[in-house]
Amino acid sequence: MTFTRYMLVAVVALAGGAAYISLAPAHGDEVSAPIFDGEIPAGYRDWRLIAVAHEEGDLNDLRAVLGNDIAIKAFREGKLPFPDGAIIARLAWKYVPSEENNRAFGRQQSFVTGDATNIQFMVKDSAKYTSSGGWGFAQFNDGKPVDAVGLSGCYVCHVPVKARDLVFTRYAP
Amino acid sequence: MTFTRYMLVAVVALAGGAAYISLAPAHGDEVSAPIFDGEIPAGYRDWRLIAVAHEEGDLNDLRAVLGNDIAIKAFREGKLPFPDGAIIARLAWKYVPSEENNRAFGRQQSFVTGDATNIQFMVKDSAKYTSSGGWGFAQFNDGKPVDAVGLSGCYVCHVPVKARDLVFTRYAP
Repeated sequence: MTFTRYMLVAVVALAGGAAYISLAPAHGDEVSAPIFDGEIPAGYRDWRLIAVAHEEGDLNDLRAVLGNDIAIKAFREGKLPFPDGAIIARLAWKYVPSEENNRAFGRQQSFVTGDATNIQFMVKDSAKYTSSGGWGFAQFNDGKPVDAVGLSGCYVCHVPVKARDLVFTRYAP
Repeated sequence: MTFTRYMLVAVVALAGGAAYISLAPAHGDEVSAPIFDGEIPAGYRDWRLIAVAHEEGDLNDLRAVLGNDIAIKAFREGKLPFPDGAIIARLAWKYVPSEENNRAFGRQQSFVTGDATNIQFMVKDSAKYTSSGGWGFAQFNDGKPVDAVGLSGCYVCHVPVKARDLVFTRYAP
């Protein structure tokens, strides 16, 4: 949920071939089928805010994590695991200094959202995504879905937060 | 919209007494009356996302700007000036490194939302807030409204973006 395709490839490489193989679809048709039929879920930009973040380094972005109604309800109630139907969206934009804001503040301090980079989704379907903790992972670059190979590192990277049902982001009050 | 009370005081000081005096209420009852009757607008946390930002320096926060339905519609349509009834909310949280995320990324790069700092609002009412470009400004610290003196610098700081109806934030697609 917090990785670009580039990062995913790096992580898979770090994890080694064994990890990669362990992520091979147990049920090929299920895992290789594109989530959301390859389409960005309608209305995701209207979903409510879970939290925001900043990534330095190669990502160098500002990001917002939104949730559909099922996801937001679960976050607010601290309900784990997330119920089926929950969808979490991670939007990201280039990290851009704002000279306009800096002039108003009288110092260099302000960074705002530039162009969108990519969008990632996690969708909970405990029957469908049995090989990845009940979550399906998707990413769209310029509106185009990343393929199954590009997404194969998502699950393993989220395993460290298995106690929070594989979700890194915490709700910002 | 992008200032804490602390910053506002500093800006008023920089602008000098003349600016401060020019911001004195033309109609005392209107301007000194607390916006929203001193209450945080119900449901603001469910409003849709306009954009996110990061402020370094004394603020050192991550922030999200949300809008009610009227504000979001105007942003998306590029409609200026904003219609009466538009409300823009600026939430902010402490800027906190995430060791959990950094471990997953394999490098120090990730910053997430910590405790909430304060909440600011701009509400458009062109008949009511005639002395501040049609916008009323409010801030809540730990749920408590900042008084009129604490808010008196808001308008003058927003004047540089008068061409965008005094709104700094641009919509993040």
